[in-house]
Amino acid sequence: MDYMIGMDLGTTSTKAVLYDMDCNVLGYANKLYPLYQDQPDMAEEDPEEIFDAVVDALTEVLRKADLKNGKLQGVSFSAAMHSLIGLDADHKPTTGVITWADNRAEKYANEYKQNGKGFEIYSRTGTPTHPMSPLYKLIWLRNEHKDIFDNSKYWVGIKEYIFYRLFGVLKEEISIASATSLFNIFKLDWDEGALKEAGITRDQLPELVQPTEQVTGMHEEYAKVIGIPTDTPFIMGASDGTLSNLGVNAIDPGVVAVTIGTSGAVRTVVDKPVIDPKGRVFCYALTKDRWVIGGPVNNGGIVFRWVRDQLFAPEKITASMMNVDSYDMLTQIAGEVPAGSDGLIFHPYLGGERAPIWDANARGSFFGLTRNHTRAHMVRAALEGIVYNLYNVMLALAEVSGSPKEIMATGGFARSELWRQMLADIFESPVTIPTAFESGALAAVTIAKKSLGLIDDISVIKDYIGETHTYQPNKENYAAYRELVPIFIRLSRQLQTEYANIADFQRKFSANSTKD
Amino acid sequence: MDYMIGMDLGTTSTKAVLYDMDCNVLGYANKLYPLYQDQPDMAEEDPEEIFDAVVDALTEVLRKADLKNGKLQGVSFSAAMHSLIGLDADHKPTTGVITWADNRAEKYANEYKQNGKGFEIYSRTGTPTHPMSPLYKLIWLRNEHKDIFDNSKYWVGIKEYIFYRLFGVLKEEISIASATSLFNIFKLDWDEGALKEAGITRDQLPELVQPTEQVTGMHEEYAKVIGIPTDTPFIMGASDGTLSNLGVNAIDPGVVAVTIGTSGAVRTVVDKPVIDPKGRVFCYALTKDRWVIGGPVNNGGIVFRWVRDQLFAPEKITASMMNVDSYDMLTQIAGEVPAGSDGLIFHPYLGGERAPIWDANARGSFFGLTRNHTRAHMVRAALEGIVYNLYNVMLALAEVSGSPKEIMATGGFARSELWRQMLADIFESPVTIPTAFESGALAAVTIAKKSLGLIDDISVIKDYIGETHTYQPNKENYAAYRELVPIFIRLSRQLQTEYANIADFQRKFSANSTKD
Ligand SMILES: Nc1ncnc2c1ncn2[C@@H]1O[C@H](COP(=O)(O)OP(=O)(O)OP(=O)(O)O)[C@@H](O)[C@H]1O
Ligand SMILES: Nc1ncnc2c1ncn2[C@@H]1O[C@H](COP(=O)(O)OP(=O)(O)O)[C@@H](O)[C@H]1O
Repeated sequence: MDYMIGMDLGTTSTKAVLYDMDCNVLGYANKLYPLYQDQPDMAEEDPEEIFDAVVDALTEVLRKADLKNGKLQGVSFSAAMHSLIGLDADHKPTTGVITWADNRAEKYANEYKQNGKGFEIYSRTGTPTHPMSPLYKLIWLRNEHKDIFDNSKYWVGIKEYIFYRLFGVLKEEISIASATSLFNIFKLDWDEGALKEAGITRDQLPELVQPTEQVTGMHEEYAKVIGIPTDTPFIMGASDGTLSNLGVNAIDPGVVAVTIGTSGAVRTVVDKPVIDPKGRVFCYALTKDRWVIGGPVNNGGIVFRWVRDQLFAPEKITASMMNVDSYDMLTQIAGEVPAGSDGLIFHPYLGGERAPIWDANARGSFFGLTRNHTRAHMVRAALEGIVYNLYNVMLALAEVSGSPKEIMATGGFARSELWRQMLADIFESPVTIPTAFESGALAAVTIAKKSLGLIDDISVIKDYIGETHTYQPNKENYAAYRELVPIFIRLSRQLQTEYANIADFQRKFSANSTKD
Repeated sequence: MDYMIGMDLGTTSTKAVLYDMDCNVLGYANKLYPLYQDQPDMAEEDPEEIFDAVVDALTEVLRKADLKNGKLQGVSFSAAMHSLIGLDADHKPTTGVITWADNRAEKYANEYKQNGKGFEIYSRTGTPTHPMSPLYKLIWLRNEHKDIFDNSKYWVGIKEYIFYRLFGVLKEEISIASATSLFNIFKLDWDEGALKEAGITRDQLPELVQPTEQVTGMHEEYAKVIGIPTDTPFIMGASDGTLSNLGVNAIDPGVVAVTIGTSGAVRTVVDKPVIDPKGRVFCYALTKDRWVIGGPVNNGGIVFRWVRDQLFAPEKITASMMNVDSYDMLTQIAGEVPAGSDGLIFHPYLGGERAPIWDANARGSFFGLTRNHTRAHMVRAALEGIVYNLYNVMLALAEVSGSPKEIMATGGFARSELWRQMLADIFESPVTIPTAFESGALAAVTIAKKSLGLIDDISVIKDYIGETHTYQPNKENYAAYRELVPIFIRLSRQLQTEYANIADFQRKFSANSTKD
């Protein structure tokens, strides 16, 4: 029997999934690493720690494979977007892995947003004007850490770094490249204007390749440790943001994938690059002829966690004594409150927000409180608010790519019946829940199969995905939501005028400022 | 030894306080009655139940008096404003006591607000355009209960009704009259224009008298029950809204009384009638040459009660097991959070609001939430929000009558050190807490002493009031509040555009609509 491996390089861990050639899962390994947040707004990883995790995860998961009687046909990658690492002339890191969650470039992103240059660059590169983007990180480093900037001969992301360490080549595929603000999504090449703003040249960046690019010739030492031949093909794969749509088979036109994990996202696949005149929507390459557009949302399940830990601290203890899941307990409490929370509206922006409002100073709010509202209303309003916000992102997507015909939902929230139904009701659309396991790794392996000529098109992934279940919107519920969503949206605009002021106060007067 | 009695006709009870001639308290009786709220927005009392309560309270409190060796020199009254009772030709009630809290005339008050007539009437009568006002109640009755309206020969308030039952005379003093929207505060007479709008004539209203007016000649039967001579002078007294300032000696120019009980108010005394060009401030007569201007606030301690009962239900039980006051426990929790609640702002409009925004559809909100905010922040923010709102009313007052030079604070909240200090910090002014007991009754008796020629001026009340304590503002705290108050105020305006929409939703979709 032969094998494939899908790797997922995430923000806090690297996962390796071992598959047979029909994409059945045979093994799983997960290696954690810390996220360094020593300074305000900093969010870095250590490149060496990630490299070790990759080698360890590969080694561990291969213990489930019988390589005497079969062969590892390929390894493919999904990776977090927007990471940046500087390398010196000897290819040694000059920085940590500056992740998407790092906000230290905020000042520069804001400047470009204000003076309109940000929008110009977005219109060519598809990456919204935000400190997450490598372009603004480069500008920040050039201005505030000139020594590091000058000392860096190359600029790469984490996936490129791992390939360099394993194979000694500097390659970057277009999916990761298209999330840097340095890549022209229409020309499929680095964007000269953006490089100029960054203050770098194209010879400082890796060679551009396709996600299906195969790399072989691994350094002996690592091949030995991992236990595979040096000519095992490693396929570049793509970014997690684009592969997650493939991984749940949301790649047909009109299929929208809604993800709520700790954070969230709404994404859909289009067949050519698309730009949002209002700058709210990203556009990243999945392959040469498939593009993922969408909006990333900071405030997903992390808001539910806050509600549980702060508003329901006593009940969390009760749940633990009962040995039941505290989220299940809270969902049950929320389920006792009617749809619309008796007119209580929650804006979930506890940690600033990316899509659709792109405001790092955004803050949370409850609106519409009466004396009849209880904590049960608050938890339901919080869940609804998270979904209203995602719906709002979907509306932005629909403006640029047309109305969705199907909604697929994934992420931790999909564990709850209440949230699934809420999604169908608020989106006023049937919602399908795929039962995919580690969909990013599965999608990466599908790219690899295409690369190896084992399949004609990546759309066969639908055969690898297990059963699905579909929820229909409930008429009564969506009648309520239809009235509340416009209020939610108008209020987001109204409140926006005071976000900067309250965030300023919080930075000035307390240690409690949160941004991410 | 001789005696005086101060009576306080409130919304849910009548209190009687027995004094010696130096205003020392000798006895106290309190008789409760129900507030009928069978229909939405209704808030009525039964005239007979109040009459019985008055007779019972008088009878009971007099048991503490030795009337063999002394005499009851006078009884005087404080009474809730804005009440309305119709009487037929035989002086029998055609309605219940329609109280200030009754909102059924809202439609008509709104209409007058919209078409500008409301402001015109306010400019002559001093009563803000609001369903609480007897004028709008009359318009409502004429339009929606024509039979009752046509069958009513006289229109009085609860105090007038009590005097009629005891003495058979129909008199109304200018303090209560000035809170009806039917009384011209400049001419000190019924306002012909307002009477026309109401559809009534001046012969349907009681004879106008001064608060010092003495009435004697009580019906035998009641005098016998109560146990006093029929010629005992009963002094008309005044409204609770005006007497409460007198009762804490907040009658000098520039002294502002801030009250937070279940509801709240900010009031100051001026020496001639004053009108607010923005219509936010009432102006009621206390005497011929003293006028109380101010703003009544729905959301005082009742908001603290909601926070305790809903957000801190588990702790309420803990407090009860510990046998400590649950408000004290919550205040202690709030005290652990820094001033400004780390940038969390609460608008306390759980039950609509009168001053300063006069919007029955107003609702509560939390703004500025981050993941670092806890329930402790929420309780502090709630207390601060109540005070921000009162400060906002004070600013409106200051616009029409000049900056305050002294703040006096009273009401249930004054029981807490934290709230007293918070008031000083947010108002950025020293705050004095008088230790008056039933200040309304004391003020009524002071009016009576003036009427009986026992004192020259009511300002001697300062001698009757016990010790006081003054709190100084804390620099660090008010530095924080100074930044938050403008945000609070700007947000109240922003949010106002959505209050009607969310209130509509709440009325339509749930049984949870609250208005008062
Ligand atoms: N120990 C305490 N600490 C702080 N606040 C308190 C405390 N006890 C009561 N309160 C507040 O005072 C409020 C009650 O005030 P008060 O006793 O003056 O009410 P009331 O007479 O019903 O009010 P009103 O005069 O508006 O009708 C409560 O709702 C609570 O918010
Ligand atoms: N039983 C549950 N019911 C509803 N929501 C849940 C449940 N369990 C977890 N969640 C939500 O899912 C979130 C975690 O999602 P997950 O996809 O596992 O996270 P990540 O994005 O870190 O991979 C939690 O923050 C919580 O809000």
